[in-house]
Amino acid sequence: MAIKWSDRYSSRTSQVDASAIREIFKLTQVPGIISFAGGLPASEMFPVREVQEAATRVLKDMGSQALQYSTTEGHLPLRAFIADRISRHGIKADENNILITSGSQQAIDLISRVFIDPGERVVVERPTFSAALQTFSSYQAVCMGVDTDEDGAVISQLEEVIDGSTKFVYIQPNFQNPGGTTLTLERRRELVATSERHGLPIVEDDPYYEFRFSGEDLPLLLELDAQQRPGGCHGDGLGEVNIIRMGTFSKTLAPGLRLGWIVAPRDVIGPLVVAKQAADLHTSILNQMLAYEVIKDGFLGPHVQRLRVVYRERRDAMLLAMGHHLPEGVHWAVPEGGFFLWVRLPEWLDAAVLLQEAVKQGVAFVPGVTFFPEDGRQPQSNTMRLNFSFCTPSVIEEGILRLGRALSRQLEG
Amino acid sequence: MAIKWSDRYSSRTSQVDASAIREIFKLTQVPGIISFAGGLPASEMFPVREVQEAATRVLKDMGSQALQYSTTEGHLPLRAFIADRISRHGIKADENNILITSGSQQAIDLISRVFIDPGERVVVERPTFSAALQTFSSYQAVCMGVDTDEDGAVISQLEEVIDGSTKFVYIQPNFQNPGGTTLTLERRRELVATSERHGLPIVEDDPYYEFRFSGEDLPLLLELDAQQRPGGCHGDGLGEVNIIRMGTFSKTLAPGLRLGWIVAPRDVIGPLVVAKQAADLHTSILNQMLAYEVIKDGFLGPHVQRLRVVYRERRDAMLLAMGHHLPEGVHWAVPEGGFFLWVRLPEWLDAAVLLQEAVKQGVAFVPGVTFFPEDGRQPQSNTMRLNFSFCTPSVIEEGILRLGRALSRQLEG
Repeated sequence: MAIKWSDRYSSRTSQVDASAIREIFKLTQVPGIISFAGGLPASEMFPVREVQEAATRVLKDMGSQALQYSTTEGHLPLRAFIADRISRHGIKADENNILITSGSQQAIDLISRVFIDPGERVVVERPTFSAALQTFSSYQAVCMGVDTDEDGAVISQLEEVIDGSTKFVYIQPNFQNPGGTTLTLERRRELVATSERHGLPIVEDDPYYEFRFSGEDLPLLLELDAQQRPGGCHGDGLGEVNIIRMGTFSKTLAPGLRLGWIVAPRDVIGPLVVAKQAADLHTSILNQMLAYEVIKDGFLGPHVQRLRVVYRERRDAMLLAMGHHLPEGVHWAVPEGGFFLWVRLPEWLDAAVLLQEAVKQGVAFVPGVTFFPEDGRQPQSNTMRLNFSFCTPSVIEEGILRLGRALSRQLEG
Repeated sequence: MAIKWSDRYSSRTSQVDASAIREIFKLTQVPGIISFAGGLPASEMFPVREVQEAATRVLKDMGSQALQYSTTEGHLPLRAFIADRISRHGIKADENNILITSGSQQAIDLISRVFIDPGERVVVERPTFSAALQTFSSYQAVCMGVDTDEDGAVISQLEEVIDGSTKFVYIQPNFQNPGGTTLTLERRRELVATSERHGLPIVEDDPYYEFRFSGEDLPLLLELDAQQRPGGCHGDGLGEVNIIRMGTFSKTLAPGLRLGWIVAPRDVIGPLVVAKQAADLHTSILNQMLAYEVIKDGFLGPHVQRLRVVYRERRDAMLLAMGHHLPEGVHWAVPEGGFFLWVRLPEWLDAAVLLQEAVKQGVAFVPGVTFFPEDGRQPQSNTMRLNFSFCTPSVIEEGILRLGRALSRQLEG
């Protein structure tokens, strides 16, 4: 009897439909298309030579360690490095508060696995990172949204959407993907206070933290939460904070290494390690050793400085071109950092329809609807996300020109 | 309000307890202990120079591809390479039937995710690979065991344990971890026929396939299943087989790369890709390109040949030492390949108790109970798994001498 496999899928598999997003990405991968649809770092800025030299040294000196099985928690020197950087924010974290993950996508997955039972709630921003939505949905969570405005997530809406089954709030506080918004200091304090009032865990996903182009760095949510603990954090690492923080080397070094991390109290790291052991045993130790070899002597600071200059230039090129080529009635805010610009079209215009015309003109983006949770409220179909980190300024200029043409056709037609 | 995290865990997290296994591994990692407890390949055989040269070439010629985001399905040349090797068994597989995973542990996880709902059944061998049991349990599967004997899994027991909720049978047909047993040709045919009769999926996990020391290679379950389809497999890759096959580079190249794969019909690969996207986006493209660069021109054949010689030598050294140093009443079978020897102690002797004495004598192993499903039947507490792949013959000799000493004490005491 030949098997009809689809009859055998688990309920979570039957429910997840990723075909819409896949269709969009298929559209954007046509040759000749300028794509603002992805979220890729600039390939030409990758530290190729440094990784190459690191590979030579690591394999020469520690080859059999680098190619052998390793610990689920991650490479100790790399964990200590990350703990040290977190400690600069006045937080008493040590390597026992750090778990290395196979990219920060895995961090989202493991956190979901450890905390979410089917039907329970997760609170997200409207809009939010679509791959996080996809993961939460795959654990059959109910994702409830709070709006965002120019000050980031509207924290005052939080108490309206949390209930007894709410497992955590997922938030990107800095230059959020996709909205580009940053949570103000006031809102951060409000969020941490709300978390404290309700004993509500916050998952602080902060992949773009290092990429601020203007304004001043704001304190981490983890930092604000730690500060309010009487006597600060305990000696036992992050004893009592309500925050699980995520970071990644995908933007600062290279996504191809698949290296992210979680900073959390030990009572969170413990079950995450067990979950990771079942998920993939451990993250490539070769890649962990390569990353550590590249960054251990201060490479990251100046490298990120160079990246900031490049990404800022690209943001500015996109903003300038948008000012020139996009018609009236199209609005956007200037993000203070990150990889993305969020664009609002006239209310009646559907960005998914615009995308069809845009692809004809040779440019692609992601329609905003992708980034809204299915929480019973209307997604903003007149929005779109533009990525500015991947293309050079001259390509950005040409792409926005094409987008302007597509928009004019839609507005005229 | 500080969070009590354990109150927040999902039901799957609350149920999984990995502390017993962790305790054993802690015991075995004491300095001076000769450990037969792991399942590690021989570090000194890793193709360190080849990986180093591959890294230099890949980063020089394709550095920005190797460090960038990549596709969830995996590196196309590597998938084509794997499909080609499968095709040598007369199976019409192409790259669309292959998913690259972050080690074969992730393959077990993704297959579980796609198919298992809580409370459903998975059939396993008694004993079976403990990390698979851990993963199935983390999806709240009920693992039902069939016994193994010198011919491998007792397939005639299969129909007693399957029911309407049984999602698949998980089996390691060759030199099984931990038992070292190999499923005979007759049993393979019987298994495939049972699968066909009931429309029952088989997960064929075959990490040790290449490491046969004596006897003849037996056909893959995938191969036998494909043969019985009228007209063989369809043009659309693995159209109608009932088998999901897993492979890994962890034993043939290096586990530190975290590279495994799944061979399956497209209706299985499709949801696996969606599941993997949510799990970790994709497997390190750098590692995939490194592996492909090392193996693309025929490296694997002679390398595996060299490994076979080394592992065979180690198996024989262990068998010889066991003959010399282990007391009467201790029994074992000679595995035709793989990494493990399975030992039966006198019925009344608990291997977990023996382990305490063994560690005092400076040698460690894994008690057999770890490898039995919780299916209501008694685990065989008088069994233990010895790994022979990691230690050199002289270390193996000394370790077995110590084990014999520990055993004599137990038998005398």
